[in-house]
Amino acid sequence: MTQPTRRVRDYLTGLQDRITSTIAVVDGGSFVVDHWKKPKGERLQGHGITQILENGAVFERAGCGFSHVTGPSLPPSATQHRPELSGAPFEALGVSLVFHPRNPFVPTVHMNVRMIAATPASGKTVCWFGGGMDLTPYYGFEEDAVHFHRTCRTALDPFGVDKYPRFKKWCDEYFFLKHRDEQRGIGGVFFDDFSELGFEGSFSMMRSVGDAFLDAYLPIVDRCRVIEYGERERAFQLYRRGRYVEFNLVWDRGTHFGLQSGGRSESILLSMPPMVSWSYQRTEEPGSEEARLYSDFLVRKDWI
Amino acid sequence: MTQPTRRVRDYLTGLQDRITSTIAVVDGGSFVVDHWKKPKGERLQGHGITQILENGAVFERAGCGFSHVTGPSLPPSATQHRPELSGAPFEALGVSLVFHPRNPFVPTVHMNVRMIAATPASGKTVCWFGGGMDLTPYYGFEEDAVHFHRTCRTALDPFGVDKYPRFKKWCDEYFFLKHRDEQRGIGGVFFDDFSELGFEGSFSMMRSVGDAFLDAYLPIVDRCRVIEYGERERAFQLYRRGRYVEFNLVWDRGTHFGLQSGGRSESILLSMPPMVSWSYQRTEEPGSEEARLYSDFLVRKDWI
Repeated sequence: MTQPTRRVRDYLTGLQDRITSTIAVVDGGSFVVDHWKKPKGERLQGHGITQILENGAVFERAGCGFSHVTGPSLPPSATQHRPELSGAPFEALGVSLVFHPRNPFVPTVHMNVRMIAATPASGKTVCWFGGGMDLTPYYGFEEDAVHFHRTCRTALDPFGVDKYPRFKKWCDEYFFLKHRDEQRGIGGVFFDDFSELGFEGSFSMMRSVGDAFLDAYLPIVDRCRVIEYGERERAFQLYRRGRYVEFNLVWDRGTHFGLQSGGRSESILLSMPPMVSWSYQRTEEPGSEEARLYSDFLVRKDWI
Repeated sequence: MTQPTRRVRDYLTGLQDRITSTIAVVDGGSFVVDHWKKPKGERLQGHGITQILENGAVFERAGCGFSHVTGPSLPPSATQHRPELSGAPFEALGVSLVFHPRNPFVPTVHMNVRMIAATPASGKTVCWFGGGMDLTPYYGFEEDAVHFHRTCRTALDPFGVDKYPRFKKWCDEYFFLKHRDEQRGIGGVFFDDFSELGFEGSFSMMRSVGDAFLDAYLPIVDRCRVIEYGERERAFQLYRRGRYVEFNLVWDRGTHFGLQSGGRSESILLSMPPMVSWSYQRTEEPGSEEARLYSDFLVRKDWI
């Protein structure tokens, strides 16, 4: 392992532990920690640490995975914008999490930070970073959306004030269910293929996003977890979780590509909700809170 | 509409009505019948009849859809084996159903019959047929698997004794979750791109498959719907339904392509189960009925 890779790995495993240990305290439950290793002889080699809390008091399913894999040649999907790296041996490491709360008033959250390093025939290793976080409420609260976006902006502003607006827009475009003509949630930030600040600057920006996650999410959990709910809210939550499944399995490049290319299914599918329902053409009463989710929250807007 | 298309359409809408009216009697509930039409100006034009029974006594969600669409040019995914038709205007009509029973001892079933007609620049319309049916048990019963496969074979034998073995194998290969290294169920038959018996013979074979559906499935429903079950079986059913979702959204060409290319989402997603769960690395007790599903049923075997 090269020195830069080691530093990124140490940051990522540390971040995973910081996040899961904090979430375990918030929940009162504990994460199962599962170290895995790809069997020798498979195309992708590598290992990972899957941490998951299921059936907790606050989180019905909270998965947070670290993985570090190497492969003999970059897949075309990863090299669209870098044809010179097509087929180069690569290394990818990242932390990815999705937390599904039990209370429908608490939003689902996703965060991911990752680095990919490829070494083309010329021999000079190229690194780039990706990541972001986004929030998916079932019942919308404007103050939470503003807080989440503000925290993202604060994390990114030191790296140039262009970053938040660019990555906010990118997030809106990425987390969009084309077949529903619907945003997945209220967005956040998303970036990929990022190396424009050089290794140090880009790594530092990725760390800033990872480090901001708990600040962005925990105050929202604290505020919403005590709101009382009943059958109606639970039914809406289960229904809306179906959209999460649809997005991840149909549109999310990481999930779709991972499953089709021999990634570790149980780790990739950490993002799946614990319980989901589908029903035909559910419609919301005009003026209801459920209708407001669609009209006021699942739309692209400037939250700050 | 040409005369052949009209005949196929009349068969398909009749089949849909026969199936849903029978299932409604079996269930005691009734299907909602939803006529839809694609808005003018979209790339795909057409209409359909979606029939769905939700929250029935026997069926928790039973969707059966007819659709008839036309498009300006065949997508590449439909012309892999017929490059000469690439880009030709086409017409596609079919009936597709997925029934999700409430009782975990009753298997989920899928059936589909369809015709595609394309008219290349040469002006001569080419028709081909596709379809099949397959069974997905939660708890396996050998006699049901044998009955289902025998009914499929009986429907196909008049069209050549090679058909059942070929289409049975095709079904095993198609309904396979590569990321789980697992069959979706106990299979059945599947065929696509079929025109080798000419229009009349191929249409007749498709009808034979469609007509055999109720004979293949209903005796199994009748036998299994009275078996008592509890929390344990229900939990396993919800978990296994997750595999159905994974297959349909990740691997099924029709679903995936339909959602990505602007098909009618609510109709395509008729196949989704009403309630589904995911949990991390669920394992079954060795020797349990749940373990036997994997070892004895979700494997490719000669059931007859």
